[in-house]
Amino acid sequence: MSRLDSFIRRMSAQRDILNHACEIVRNVEGPVFELGLGNGRTFHHLREHLPGRRIIAFDRELAAHASSHPAPEDLVLGEIRDTASAFVGAEAALVHADIGTGYDDKDAITLTWLPQLAVGLLRSGGLAVSGLPLDRAELEPLPLPDSVPAGRYFMYRRR
Amino acid sequence: MSRLDSFIRRMSAQRDILNHACEIVRNVEGPVFELGLGNGRTFHHLREHLPGRRIIAFDRELAAHASSHPAPEDLVLGEIRDTASAFVGAEAALVHADIGTGYDDKDAITLTWLPQLAVGLLRSGGLAVSGLPLDRAELEPLPLPDSVPAGRYFMYRRR
Repeated sequence: MSRLDSFIRRMSAQRDILNHACEIVRNVEGPVFELGLGNGRTFHHLREHLPGRRIIAFDRELAAHASSHPAPEDLVLGEIRDTASAFVGAEAALVHADIGTGYDDKDAITLTWLPQLAVGLLRSGGLAVSGLPLDRAELEPLPLPDSVPAGRYFMYRRR
Repeated sequence: MSRLDSFIRRMSAQRDILNHACEIVRNVEGPVFELGLGNGRTFHHLREHLPGRRIIAFDRELAAHASSHPAPEDLVLGEIRDTASAFVGAEAALVHADIGTGYDDKDAITLTWLPQLAVGLLRSGGLAVSGLPLDRAELEPLPLPDSVPAGRYFMYRRR
């Protein structure tokens, strides 16, 4: 399969899992954390599916399309590992982390801090959706929509 | 529709139109020009669908995933407008240009040089596939696969 085919599958899986998570999170209070704003497409998607919800986006620098810029008070720039740590205890309803790189060695470093950070940000009952597995006892793996191939995306509920 | 939904549609349309173009181009001699290597996903796709064909990729700088780096002799870095002009007369079988930005003012500048460049690169009977319309008398618009929404992608045959 070409990387283009694989990418389309990944994006479609991401969309389906975010839609599913938004359905659940509609009944869970608290802000949404978008770890890795990137181009801003999933931020835009979350904003459409969770109208009125505060969505705080994190990234090293602002690279999003102009149509997907968060309000200044909802954009936190810098190393996500450092900046997001300041929000531990925020009782988030949803943490979405799309910061995998496709390079195993780089992703291994991310996995030394991301699972614990997600735990710290979420309220009990809140969801984490991630392109990397978040292996923590406090996070209960949830079944994925049928359209999402195993191992591509992960969803958890904070116990 | 969210930007994520729109993006998935655009990628799927791009894949379908490239598959269609590769079917046609299999019987047309000449190199392939990839104007805008970017992440390298469509380069990777073209390489899979046109095995053995020379594919020359152009971009400002190399930002592609390591799995999608062209051979050094098939990678031309610099302003595409300038670098690709040196290949006019190359008798290409396919020119694929995915260099739209989503910003109308920037794309308008690209459109001042891209259509003419595509004409100059292609052999008679060669195809141009583009995310921006290429309005030139030498380029005959071709019908798109049914799955490609009108106005999102364009395909032409060099007369």
